Amino acid sequence: MEDKKEIRPVEWRDDALYLIDQRELPDMLSWVRIEKLKDLLTAIKTMQVRGAPAIGCAAAFGFYLAARESRRTEGVRELRQARPTAVNLNWALDRMQDAHDMERDLLTEAQSILDEDIAANQAMGVFGAGLVEGPVPVLTHCNAGALATGGYGTALGVVRAGWEEGRITEVFATETRPRLQGTKLTAWELAYDGIPSTVLTDSAAASLLSEGKVKWLIVGADRIAENGDVANKIGTLSLAVIANHFDIPMMVVAPLSTIDWDSKTGGDIPIESRSEKEVWKGKRSELVSFKNQAFDITPADLIDWIVTERGTFKPSNLGDMFSGTEERPRSKRSRRHRGTIVPGVAPIR
Amino acid sequence: MEDKKEIRPVEWRDDALYLIDQRELPDMLSWVRIEKLKDLLTAIKTMQVRGAPAIGCAAAFGFYLAARESRRTEGVRELRQARPTAVNLNWALDRMQDAHDMERDLLTEAQSILDEDIAANQAMGVFGAGLVEGPVPVLTHCNAGALATGGYGTALGVVRAGWEEGRITEVFATETRPRLQGTKLTAWELAYDGIPSTVLTDSAAASLLSEGKVKWLIVGADRIAENGDVANKIGTLSLAVIANHFDIPMMVVAPLSTIDWDSKTGGDIPIESRSEKEVWKGKRSELVSFKNQAFDITPADLIDWIVTERGTFKPSNLGDMFSGTEERPRSKRSRRHRGTIVPGVAPIR
Repeated sequence: MEDKKEIRPVEWRDDALYLIDQRELPDMLSWVRIEKLKDLLTAIKTMQVRGAPAIGCAAAFGFYLAARESRRTEGVRELRQARPTAVNLNWALDRMQDAHDMERDLLTEAQSILDEDIAANQAMGVFGAGLVEGPVPVLTHCNAGALATGGYGTALGVVRAGWEEGRITEVFATETRPRLQGTKLTAWELAYDGIPSTVLTDSAAASLLSEGKVKWLIVGADRIAENGDVANKIGTLSLAVIANHFDIPMMVVAPLSTIDWDSKTGGDIPIESRSEKEVWKGKRSELVSFKNQAFDITPADLIDWIVTERGTFKPSNLGDMFSGTEERPRSKRSRRHRGTIVPGVAPIR
Repeated sequence: MEDKKEIRPVEWRDDALYLIDQRELPDMLSWVRIEKLKDLLTAIKTMQVRGAPAIGCAAAFGFYLAARESRRTEGVRELRQARPTAVNLNWALDRMQDAHDMERDLLTEAQSILDEDIAANQAMGVFGAGLVEGPVPVLTHCNAGALATGGYGTALGVVRAGWEEGRITEVFATETRPRLQGTKLTAWELAYDGIPSTVLTDSAAASLLSEGKVKWLIVGADRIAENGDVANKIGTLSLAVIANHFDIPMMVVAPLSTIDWDSKTGGDIPIESRSEKEVWKGKRSELVSFKNQAFDITPADLIDWIVTERGTFKPSNLGDMFSGTEERPRSKRSRRHRGTIVPGVAPIR
């Protein structure tokens, strides 16, 4: 990395929230200034900000905005409904609610959530890179990078750390239909940090992995169930099955805030379904439908390691990250969408 | 099917070759009239006509055009180089050469190749549909339909026959990046014949197959090696691995002209690599590359059935389709690109 500023998709300054407008990448690096909760809701729904940890960080500031606008209860409810799968959103709002109940300063708490997320990513980078016996090429999916988090990234945090340590020599990135986060975000942010990458269509990954050159599949997560099942961007299950077939290990990199101890298995995780227009905007017959499920569930038995800021764990033993007396975080929120596919709310530009 | 004309992507009439311009679908059903070999070469390279059997049929008429233009040797060489993976092209040119050597009428021979391809597809439709214990939904990839052949289709021929017999109740089609043949061609041609379909992104197929509803994976082929390995549109290997993981049987439907008895295994099949611009035309850093391999190799052991006009065969026993005394067709052509990835020549519009 040069002297360039590190990528920070969520920042509070000048009494407002600044978000990198991720819909404008890779054409332009620009920010949206958000002073009102309603604009943050739009930013989350339209994916100006996306990635489960980044949504969580932004939502923490959203709690503060809602309180500032004297509509905390209603505002927080709207935030919770903005995206159904990313559990970090609920986690951050729960933590902000606790801070509010304890009369702590809300802006300070939101900033702590953001700072801790970046620190967690840096820790995961070290833990995850330590698993990679390099130097080897790796494959990642979607964008689990600085842009998807407070900064540094989860899967791409491991890539950054592994690149600096010489363990990772080459990064392959799936383009990630329908929204092309691999092409538009992952390739862009790696190049921003001077790391070369090769983008391929999602369906080309099997042929790539069959060649035996790529030694790790490294992805993020939008929600992890207690049993180690992982909800992540659609196509993750596809890559997990293929990696398993070709004996390539898979690591899922995600902070503790991504683990939903209230979801016993992947079947309990609500999966967002988004507009057909993300897949195809052109002419079509009435006899043609489009299916656009934004996430899929990868069962724990296809995953070799789950990396959190507490270390590396087998998916079947996530509980190991807590000491015997430590209580696991349970959510206070009610979740009405357990285990169902719920329609997304995001309009298409 | 109603009184509508059946889809015929390759037709000879009024002393010229008419091709459905497949780049204009699904917006517009239009034809290009081709009188000169050079225009046919452009049509093949730019994928106005595509699909291994359709390319073979078109190339047969190309042989006639080359002879008519008194540049048969040079013209046939150019045709052979137009697309490297689809072996039907070479097969058709070999057969036309034999006809020429025996002083048969070239236009009649080309028309026979086309007519026989349609008849083969209709036979395969019956054989393939017979494997499907319905009524069940099926998944297909790319376009192995009427548009990819002389007419009726290979994989979609099985779908047409299975739909008419009530064995197939629902068709899922992958969009097939980078060129979206699933969205633009398969969904269009099924709707043309009144068959509804649901299109999904390529990477969403794993989640779909994990649900257990889809009971067959049915695809075409661009070239089949003697040992039953299959070269087909990129992503076929991905679906084959996933179908295998979820215990969903796979059938490959292709005429005899797709079997290359000179390729012992998939490793002998040249794989076309096409322009990066098919994957991404927008802004990118010099640190970002794009990989665009047009086909992949599915090993025989992931395939349950190969369906030809002679019946249904286990991939490991393709030789069973010949009687003991019958000679297997061997090619006379030299192939300089065995087992390598060769750059494609097609410009991007």
